[in-house]
Amino acid sequence: MPNYRLLLAYDGSDFHGWQRQPAARSVQGELERALAVLAREPVAVQGAGRTDAGVHALGQCASFAFTPPRPLSTQRLLAALRGLLPEDITPLAVHEVAPDFNARFSATARFYEYRLGLVPCAPLRRLRWEISRPLDLAAMRAALGLLEGAEDFRAFSTKDGAARGTRCRLRRLALDLREPAEEELRLAIGADRFLHNMVRIIVGTLVEIGRGRWQPDRVTAILASGDRRLAGPTAPPQGLFLAQVEYPERFLAPGERPAAADSS
Amino acid sequence: MPNYRLLLAYDGSDFHGWQRQPAARSVQGELERALAVLAREPVAVQGAGRTDAGVHALGQCASFAFTPPRPLSTQRLLAALRGLLPEDITPLAVHEVAPDFNARFSATARFYEYRLGLVPCAPLRRLRWEISRPLDLAAMRAALGLLEGAEDFRAFSTKDGAARGTRCRLRRLALDLREPAEEELRLAIGADRFLHNMVRIIVGTLVEIGRGRWQPDRVTAILASGDRRLAGPTAPPQGLFLAQVEYPERFLAPGERPAAADSS
Repeated sequence: MPNYRLLLAYDGSDFHGWQRQPAARSVQGELERALAVLAREPVAVQGAGRTDAGVHALGQCASFAFTPPRPLSTQRLLAALRGLLPEDITPLAVHEVAPDFNARFSATARFYEYRLGLVPCAPLRRLRWEISRPLDLAAMRAALGLLEGAEDFRAFSTKDGAARGTRCRLRRLALDLREPAEEELRLAIGADRFLHNMVRIIVGTLVEIGRGRWQPDRVTAILASGDRRLAGPTAPPQGLFLAQVEYPERFLAPGERPAAADSS
Repeated sequence: MPNYRLLLAYDGSDFHGWQRQPAARSVQGELERALAVLAREPVAVQGAGRTDAGVHALGQCASFAFTPPRPLSTQRLLAALRGLLPEDITPLAVHEVAPDFNARFSATARFYEYRLGLVPCAPLRRLRWEISRPLDLAAMRAALGLLEGAEDFRAFSTKDGAARGTRCRLRRLALDLREPAEEELRLAIGADRFLHNMVRIIVGTLVEIGRGRWQPDRVTAILASGDRRLAGPTAPPQGLFLAQVEYPERFLAPGERPAAADSS
């Protein structure tokens, strides 16, 4: 039975998150519905990142296996998905992959982006967190510097005592101001794994520091405490984008580039 | 009676355009409804650009005059509008201006931006035209070069024989590729005046050239003909943004910068 990897983008605004749910619209549910039409039987889809309600994706990865009733090139599978999926999901590429590939468990890193609007802008309100006040970029960058060496992110996690521990290895951490006209800050953050709500709690903490309510070195105290209550609030979901997922080279198609999100 | 200038952004997706209409939602209608609450009487609002249905604004300007029932600073007027307007309209700034200021007739130039998506991306589908195929940027730039010297844009206009003629003086014309990851082309175009659908027909023509269907020098033939039928199709509205409006310096508030859209 062929195993497939799908690269996709979606607008999370109208989904109750990635994960299939009995009575609510989900990305996984929509994908499984579309694939069942093609496969003429139920198909289970696995996703690299189980994004929460309202969180977007620019480069989510999903895997699924099924035997097409008729021969089906990946090109035609992609075209069929484009036709069957709703307009808030964009399938970007399909590759056939080794049978042991699993979009979730094969991933070696995930890269997220969080967008902060410094001036309100109605057309972008679903794609960023509007702060509407100046933020001290230097203080926020100082805080990020303190975060860079961290290994245990327990304090930046909603669920206490994650089953697999609370250690994460950061792969990328950068805060950039987009060209002045957009008045937008973008935090790029990558790691081998993320704890629940980790990016959003880091952003909520950075914004408290950017507003001047806390000093940057509070990050050190938060990290040392392992106490969620010392960190900032969980930033809202609409600013968060799953940007890219990294896999071992053996799962990449010939000619496919490995994740480039580390650089720049 | 104080005269006001309002700078605002809006998401055009759910509006039937700027202009007030009896049975449809419009930006002008929403503004007049909000101002009537504050003024306790009808207030007429004038807009710099009467954007069509689905067209967005990042820097639209509106003017209106009314006598507040109680003293009202521009600061508090702005805050009140923020509270009274729906979430797809963002009031950005309010200034009191000379009695003869009119957002539409005082404008000396308008600057638009048109965004083309080169790879489909669901989160951005309401904010650009998704072309989903490579475009020949060099050919499109060559075509823009031929457009630069033009004075009569009759062929790039929906309504034949505009009352005030079809001559426009371009102030800015630039096509830029946004950082590779976004796969987005942005056309910036400014002029002392625009004919109906002019930007969207220019974009529709550029895309035909970028796809290789036409040679760049077709622009010269289109301009010379004055014939709408020789130009490309009208590009869809969701890629168009009214970016900025320029007024004579005497209408600017102390410290306010004049339009900077010419530079860069």
